[in-house]
Amino acid sequence: MKPGLNTIGAAEIARRIQAGETSAEAVMEDCVARIRQRELEIGAFVQFDADRALSAARAADRSASAGPLHGVPFAVKDIIDTADFATGWGSPIYEGVMPPRNASCVELFLRAGAIPVGKTVTTEFAYFFPGKTANPHHRDHTPGGSSSGSAASVSDNMVPLAFGSQTAASLIRPAAYCGVLGYKASHGAFDLQGVMGLAPSLDTLGVLAREVEDLILARSVLCGSSDKPSPDFDETPPRIALMRGPHWWDGSIEMRDVCQRALDQFAAGGADVGELTHPEVFDRLTEHQTTVMAFEAARSRIFEYSRYRDRISSQFCDLVESGMTVSRDAYLNALAERSGAMRLLETLFLDVDVILAPAAPGEAPEGLNATGDPLFSRGWTLLQVPCLSIPAGTGPKHLPLSVQAVGAHGDDDRLLAAAGWMHRQLAEFD
Amino acid sequence: MKPGLNTIGAAEIARRIQAGETSAEAVMEDCVARIRQRELEIGAFVQFDADRALSAARAADRSASAGPLHGVPFAVKDIIDTADFATGWGSPIYEGVMPPRNASCVELFLRAGAIPVGKTVTTEFAYFFPGKTANPHHRDHTPGGSSSGSAASVSDNMVPLAFGSQTAASLIRPAAYCGVLGYKASHGAFDLQGVMGLAPSLDTLGVLAREVEDLILARSVLCGSSDKPSPDFDETPPRIALMRGPHWWDGSIEMRDVCQRALDQFAAGGADVGELTHPEVFDRLTEHQTTVMAFEAARSRIFEYSRYRDRISSQFCDLVESGMTVSRDAYLNALAERSGAMRLLETLFLDVDVILAPAAPGEAPEGLNATGDPLFSRGWTLLQVPCLSIPAGTGPKHLPLSVQAVGAHGDDDRLLAAAGWMHRQLAEFD
Repeated sequence: MKPGLNTIGAAEIARRIQAGETSAEAVMEDCVARIRQRELEIGAFVQFDADRALSAARAADRSASAGPLHGVPFAVKDIIDTADFATGWGSPIYEGVMPPRNASCVELFLRAGAIPVGKTVTTEFAYFFPGKTANPHHRDHTPGGSSSGSAASVSDNMVPLAFGSQTAASLIRPAAYCGVLGYKASHGAFDLQGVMGLAPSLDTLGVLAREVEDLILARSVLCGSSDKPSPDFDETPPRIALMRGPHWWDGSIEMRDVCQRALDQFAAGGADVGELTHPEVFDRLTEHQTTVMAFEAARSRIFEYSRYRDRISSQFCDLVESGMTVSRDAYLNALAERSGAMRLLETLFLDVDVILAPAAPGEAPEGLNATGDPLFSRGWTLLQVPCLSIPAGTGPKHLPLSVQAVGAHGDDDRLLAAAGWMHRQLAEFD
Repeated sequence: MKPGLNTIGAAEIARRIQAGETSAEAVMEDCVARIRQRELEIGAFVQFDADRALSAARAADRSASAGPLHGVPFAVKDIIDTADFATGWGSPIYEGVMPPRNASCVELFLRAGAIPVGKTVTTEFAYFFPGKTANPHHRDHTPGGSSSGSAASVSDNMVPLAFGSQTAASLIRPAAYCGVLGYKASHGAFDLQGVMGLAPSLDTLGVLAREVEDLILARSVLCGSSDKPSPDFDETPPRIALMRGPHWWDGSIEMRDVCQRALDQFAAGGADVGELTHPEVFDRLTEHQTTVMAFEAARSRIFEYSRYRDRISSQFCDLVESGMTVSRDAYLNALAERSGAMRLLETLFLDVDVILAPAAPGEAPEGLNATGDPLFSRGWTLLQVPCLSIPAGTGPKHLPLSVQAVGAHGDDDRLLAAAGWMHRQLAEFD
């Protein structure tokens, strides 16, 4: 039996529909069938509307191509406003609330011809309190959070593309645990209108997919095509430096192993590889990210905290309350050290294209009552740089392991081009 | 006859209520009476609920002090979400839409004890297409925009405090035209959850008031009290440098005159005054702000543009369409030059506390079909610095003239402290 069209990437789907080799309806039927078959077990969606999706796919087949995502199914993390689906932020407070408009990212996807199948599970307010989603690789293990449903739905071949977001590690970690590509853009790269804010200095929109070309396509739709061609790393493979970072010894042995093996693989593929010692200020980035996130979340979610404390998890209450005790000086100091670290990091990218780093402490932990540790992303998120989680084989429990590729702030194109090369090298791991 | 309690500032109202010298109800009654008397002529509000406001004031009088704004009436620009009032963004598309929550700034004011009286008129999507508001100083003249109703309501003694916002000149210009204090914070200083975004790199929340101490109070509520004492400019008056800037000769003769007279007044008051030539890169800031605003607005308002083009003004359609033609390189170049200019500006603030600059081209122009020229604020908004419009007498048509005080990014405390001193000096103009 041929694998279903639901297993194909977004760019390839768009190409085949454009060429008349398949139809948007046929693609959507396979995605819908997969969701129906698996959703009870995985729980990726808070809302899923098969009829609407199929009907939109048929309409797409009847009309001229709307754009580069014509007929491509996608899913939307439920902290992102949608005019056609309720948007609940993972909280009982907002269950069933219908926004009056689409978030910009959703509308840009629709204008490019993509078709939404539903809203994916997020942890409460994109923080720690988990939803119902299980890891498609093992249902007793967490998919990670907060973009839990988006990572699981892409991993389980329900959709080729899904929106996620990251304030600490909410995109890179679930992508790593579910064995898919997760792309957190440079902070500020994509418009956030209609995306719930948690900590504005950190909040970043991103995309989960199974193919790097799909991330590049999604990026071009979200921010307008790049005017300059991306570097071609087929001719000259990227310059890649492993940065173990301050938490290297806090992760698992398999995390360290997969980073080293990936570096060797890249060297064998012809990349110019090396190692970089992290600057001393990086030792404090995790702490500073925690400070900034708490301070800002205490303000961004002050309405829910004031009005509905009994309907908020104790974890989230703790976040707000800890943020209220952070002094403004401590907050400003964290931002100032961040600025210094960003300038330092910029100089490191003069000599390398990609910094290689751990994506998560290891395989997805057992249990659905927690979503894992954001330790390996907090610092990078604070630094506002583009990050990618790239699958790199499996660990002792046969669950996915990944590495993290980090690029220079604003140079997402270079990172994504390098990631294409890296992804191909690492595909040979399995 | 004693002037009504509606003419008193927010901090003084809070003090008198706290001391038992007046009640929240008495204050609200005077504000409500003023609004009822004048609203037909001024048109500051899109919604005004006297019963709710009076009832909230009576409740405040029965309860313990909630915080530093206990019993203080305020008004909210209608691009800011309120759970108790519809939020229409100045557009027929969203007329009557009830948000499920309060914006953070509104909730923080409520927690501090302040009482909302209603929503004030904004131009469509906080851009150029005007609402119904007239200038309280002359009803045939524009109040400025986009924070039209907030500036007019404070100027006309309807409320002591109102929220505004600025992406180009939307707070400084109406404050100048209406002869009130307008404070645009450092970009990023206040949480924007629930505030409509137009161009996220520029969008800034601010406050309009008649007393500098009210701005300081509002700021402390919005971002947590300063941990450090503000400088005391009674002892040593501030160091003030006039920067004429690239548009000096594009304004009116009375604009230039009021800046020079203000500088003389500050010198006479004992300030260390001087002049600063603007760095060469400042010549391009207005153009860069226009580029950034168009590029980002084309993304932030893509939903309305896609779905409801027939219900959007031609001016706003033009903005979105011009933003769609801006190349990403042009956008990134504008941001890069901005960064360079910000670093340059930072060094200038080593030697001065305040840069003095024009606030608007002159008096409020005649006619309610346009809101005046944002020329004198675009650059400062791009640079993300805190700005204040300070009334400085009247012009040949007996309409208000103002000067603009600009501070170092992040050092709003120093600017506000200096503004207190400057405001006292300039009060002698009239």
